[in-house]
Amino acid sequence: MNFKSDNEAPAHPAVMDALMAANEGYATAYSQDHWSLALNERLSEWFGTECQVLPVSTGTAANCMALAEISPPWGGIVCHQVAHIQNDEGGAPEFYTHGAKLMPLAGDNGKLAPDVVAQAIDRAGVHGVHNVKPSLVSITQATECGTVYRPDEVKALAEVAHQRGLPLHMDGARFANALAWLDCTPGEITWQAGVDVLSLGLTKNGALNAEALVVFGHPEWLEGLERRRKRGGHLLSKMRYVSAQILAMLDDELALSLAAQANARAAELAAGIEASERASLHWPTEANEVFMRADPAVLAALKSAGFAFHIWPGYDDVARLVCSWATREEDVAAFVDALRGV
Amino acid sequence: MNFKSDNEAPAHPAVMDALMAANEGYATAYSQDHWSLALNERLSEWFGTECQVLPVSTGTAANCMALAEISPPWGGIVCHQVAHIQNDEGGAPEFYTHGAKLMPLAGDNGKLAPDVVAQAIDRAGVHGVHNVKPSLVSITQATECGTVYRPDEVKALAEVAHQRGLPLHMDGARFANALAWLDCTPGEITWQAGVDVLSLGLTKNGALNAEALVVFGHPEWLEGLERRRKRGGHLLSKMRYVSAQILAMLDDELALSLAAQANARAAELAAGIEASERASLHWPTEANEVFMRADPAVLAALKSAGFAFHIWPGYDDVARLVCSWATREEDVAAFVDALRGV
Amino acid sequence: MNFKSDNEAPAHPAVMDALMAANEGYATAYSQDHWSLALNERLSEWFGTECQVLPVSTGTAANCMALAEISPPWGGIVCHQVAHIQNDEGGAPEFYTHGAKLMPLAGDNGKLAPDVVAQAIDRAGVHGVHNVKPSLVSITQATECGTVYRPDEVKALAEVAHQRGLPLHMDGARFANALAWLDCTPGEITWQAGVDVLSLGLTKNGALNAEALVVFGHPEWLEGLERRRKRGGHLLSKMRYVSAQILAMLDDELALSLAAQANARAAELAAGIEASERASLHWPTEANEVFMRADPAVLAALKSAGFAFHIWPGYDDVARLVCSWATREEDVAAFVDALRGV
Amino acid sequence: MNFKSDNEAPAHPAVMDALMAANEGYATAYSQDHWSLALNERLSEWFGTECQVLPVSTGTAANCMALAEISPPWGGIVCHQVAHIQNDEGGAPEFYTHGAKLMPLAGDNGKLAPDVVAQAIDRAGVHGVHNVKPSLVSITQATECGTVYRPDEVKALAEVAHQRGLPLHMDGARFANALAWLDCTPGEITWQAGVDVLSLGLTKNGALNAEALVVFGHPEWLEGLERRRKRGGHLLSKMRYVSAQILAMLDDELALSLAAQANARAAELAAGIEASERASLHWPTEANEVFMRADPAVLAALKSAGFAFHIWPGYDDVARLVCSWATREEDVAAFVDALRGV
Repeated sequence: MNFKSDNEAPAHPAVMDALMAANEGYATAYSQDHWSLALNERLSEWFGTECQVLPVSTGTAANCMALAEISPPWGGIVCHQVAHIQNDEGGAPEFYTHGAKLMPLAGDNGKLAPDVVAQAIDRAGVHGVHNVKPSLVSITQATECGTVYRPDEVKALAEVAHQRGLPLHMDGARFANALAWLDCTPGEITWQAGVDVLSLGLTKNGALNAEALVVFGHPEWLEGLERRRKRGGHLLSKMRYVSAQILAMLDDELALSLAAQANARAAELAAGIEASERASLHWPTEANEVFMRADPAVLAALKSAGFAFHIWPGYDDVARLVCSWATREEDVAAFVDALRGV
Repeated sequence: MNFKSDNEAPAHPAVMDALMAANEGYATAYSQDHWSLALNERLSEWFGTECQVLPVSTGTAANCMALAEISPPWGGIVCHQVAHIQNDEGGAPEFYTHGAKLMPLAGDNGKLAPDVVAQAIDRAGVHGVHNVKPSLVSITQATECGTVYRPDEVKALAEVAHQRGLPLHMDGARFANALAWLDCTPGEITWQAGVDVLSLGLTKNGALNAEALVVFGHPEWLEGLERRRKRGGHLLSKMRYVSAQILAMLDDELALSLAAQANARAAELAAGIEASERASLHWPTEANEVFMRADPAVLAALKSAGFAFHIWPGYDDVARLVCSWATREEDVAAFVDALRGV
Repeated sequence: MNFKSDNEAPAHPAVMDALMAANEGYATAYSQDHWSLALNERLSEWFGTECQVLPVSTGTAANCMALAEISPPWGGIVCHQVAHIQNDEGGAPEFYTHGAKLMPLAGDNGKLAPDVVAQAIDRAGVHGVHNVKPSLVSITQATECGTVYRPDEVKALAEVAHQRGLPLHMDGARFANALAWLDCTPGEITWQAGVDVLSLGLTKNGALNAEALVVFGHPEWLEGLERRRKRGGHLLSKMRYVSAQILAMLDDELALSLAAQANARAAELAAGIEASERASLHWPTEANEVFMRADPAVLAALKSAGFAFHIWPGYDDVARLVCSWATREEDVAAFVDALRGV
Repeated sequence: MNFKSDNEAPAHPAVMDALMAANEGYATAYSQDHWSLALNERLSEWFGTECQVLPVSTGTAANCMALAEISPPWGGIVCHQVAHIQNDEGGAPEFYTHGAKLMPLAGDNGKLAPDVVAQAIDRAGVHGVHNVKPSLVSITQATECGTVYRPDEVKALAEVAHQRGLPLHMDGARFANALAWLDCTPGEITWQAGVDVLSLGLTKNGALNAEALVVFGHPEWLEGLERRRKRGGHLLSKMRYVSAQILAMLDDELALSLAAQANARAAELAAGIEASERASLHWPTEANEVFMRADPAVLAALKSAGFAFHIWPGYDDVARLVCSWATREEDVAAFVDALRGV
């Protein structure tokens, strides 16, 4: 049973249907097809404000195009020390930005704290050209620790950033999971809270390979973003197949309902773990990821029993268990049973 | 009727079926799924030699990963002056290579001539570090002019390159079209002719977004290629959907039969144009692209009549007409009729 | 006798004296010393307009900082096909610009022609993100062919560039030689003719290692230029020793008088060659470089006789003969005698 | 009185004399003059082993050429968190390496500890292409805290690095100061202790702008280093003036004696501070930098009294006081008197 990652799950049938439907006749290449051209309007509706959307195939591409557009090569990118852009993209941010420097900060539960961010920005760059220049703040929603920023928390970070002239980027690889947990509108947790640009991840959420870079109110970034997408090799000729996925995920709030489903499984899993007395939660479970602390021997036993999951880097007693839209109640129950039985 | 590009055509139903079939259950992420893991063996069979394969979503990604792995940042990339990497990738080669220099050369029918290449390499770099250092030769098969390199022609270029220590890259955006026209084996026109690395394009050929970078006999390039793929944001988490397309295109030689079909339409179109007395062929038609020279008024009339095609950059009297697997005999007939009737 | 290059000549004694004078006591580091701080005012006086100056040690650094500040990574840099930035800087422009593309053009006597530039810009970039985007025009003064742009010629190029939104860069590696020949003011051949930024070369002119990047009216470039200078490792801690050289070259118009002296020698050399009936001038001699066309056997004989010079790349019968401030009349006479006697 | 930095000090008269002596006649450009060509032999003698030397004008250039040659763009550069390359080069390492990632580590007195380095390397890169790959270890000698690595300490770090396939780089901006304090041979603290490449700084030591990149036993790095120097704009045409400085600093062990002199002043200063009962030493004084901890009011009073120094970043009660070859005994005495009198 797979709790390794939501990116190992299949795509949702409705997305496959949309792909099939999009496979009809000729369509203008390079994101000029009517699916791609519909994205701005559809996502503007969803977010409740006019936004501009660039579809791409990976979250790394979406993140890095945004970072590179905002940060000059001598810029500093303020982020959490567990951020995906810092640890898990193989240096892609440095590649796309032509050498900007990640400025990783500590913070509870995978979240940046406004005062820590403020201090980091204010202390950096005091020696002018001898230092890198903080150029943006990037947060992950839901965080890499499975927690979720509240609108007020995002607002406070945006305020710190904006007061210092820095935009705020949100890596929303699991955005819908956060949204489902928050029970707020997409707008409330993004542009209304000060987010300038969002990497809206849909692949983990139930698509095949579809992410949308969503820009709120910065038309001056568009040309650079489009140039960077092309230069990165991310302007697919047959973009319709990416855009059709995105549209399908918006229809009837599919993204949100799949995320809610995954979150529900994670909540059950978390409850089962806590009740088991064999293990505990390392970080609060808020979205679709559960971080379980248990004796390494227990973790090994569960692995032997056929449960697949990652041991969290830097720990030997913390397992990350990810639920997806495809995780079934019985999968969770089986895991909890096995845990009890160890 | 669309003769603009084969990348505006839909995907072939068999590819869609393969995509559906791949959408079952969990699969290991990041190209460790069993579809992706099967690629080396399947393509090794196809080429008749052991090769190593990296699936990606775009031809630009495939080309640029290869160029960057072979050429140091101070390298020179010898190519034809109409090469896609020189003109149509928005500077992606320069981005991925960290600033290598394209060395564009003239040559009839979109092909590089061995003596021209030899001279360009031998004359470059004579001032050591003051000059860029020629580092590889890149050819396009079929060429941007719709012509096809014969095995002997590739061999002659490979010899020139190899004698000078330079590998040979083949941009095979329309490789299957070339292969179908040549009636030789995949091996004969690649590694047996001295090709070191091939960007095997399948998207224009009938897939959605699937290209395979195929390396012949250079295991020392693998780590760098994989790193560059990740840093470029091209290591899809759900790679199975790309790899399944590639496998489908290999089944029953689908790639080849779709290419043959497109080539047949192009041949009919070329014959019709020549017989029309209204227009002529600007370059020989060998694959699935027809370059028709006609009075600009004729071209305008055809556009008004609903035929979509590109006027070739740098000309006002040359139209590029591309046939795909989805081009029908009646589409070609309609075009030829319209041309006669102008 | 050395006619290889003016950069093989020693520094002028007055520059050495200035260096000695600058070597007294402590001075603030990183270009905050009073020599460096005086540059803006002194060069503003010289040029007759307010300009901003960044001292550096090499012409490549000056050129590349300017190119990188003006051109985005996806930009195209329009230049002559014999331009130093295209052929002789080992790819430094591509390095500093993060992969911009040089767009080399043909033109008589090493000069760009306005209509050729206009056409190149207008034809490029028609396919949007698929093409690189022309971003600036760069000319060399005096040119690599030893000729000199007149103010009207620069104006015409600036007009073509500015009408299309592109700034004009002047690589003035031999600026003083051009100026001495033109007999106009420094302002007339730069900002008054539309030059936006000048690499003012003083090393070949008689300094040790001093170049000034001079910006006319673009305060928005300053931060980026300073960042790029630091990141390139060109912000010398003891910058006073560079700036003192620049100031010394301005005192009593030393730069100009040394250039005039070198030009005079070149003119004598050119006259001697023409009178010799053994050789001819390949390009007109206007500054301090003479391009002599002669039978390869004649060139070989002169080399054997101890005269050092370069055979021009791409030719076997053209020698470049460079005069410097240190070239003596008797050196020229000896060469001409030898030529006659071959 | 200036205790701000040794790079604000003038050059030593013997270096100026050497510069004058080098200013005679023509000399081959681009590091092919006889001063530059003598460097390999002279520094090989000094180090007691064959080494290869590239002269440059700044320490940043020397460091970054080395880092870029050793680390691929996806590499990780292990260094101390106070390292100059991490904090004070404005992102130059990221620029030259095309985006490698600095991996800053904590450690007492500015020194890396072998077990900390080992752990950092071993824990990084476990997720393959998703992580950056540790590619070299860089240490500073003397450290940014004014302390000095002993040969055994360097050996232990080299062993940790080499066992893992990583070379060891030494940033020797104040190498001679370290050497003078250690009283060992140049070889014992470099190649004999496992250093693969050294940035030998001479500017702070008493030159104008001269640094030597010294490579021990890696001929395979030479081409790349030379290419990177050119592309960085650091291949001075009149390199003789840099190389002559380096040679002058080696004559009669001038570098060493100037360093010993600066160290002696620093030792006197440290002793005076400790005896003053007004302040204490924050880090041990081993080379020519003294880190004095004192009440901020005391520091302010000293500044008002005309003593120039830097407050150390991140502190308000630590002053860095740097002695140079030009610091006089009476300068130190004046400072100590003033401190006592506050």
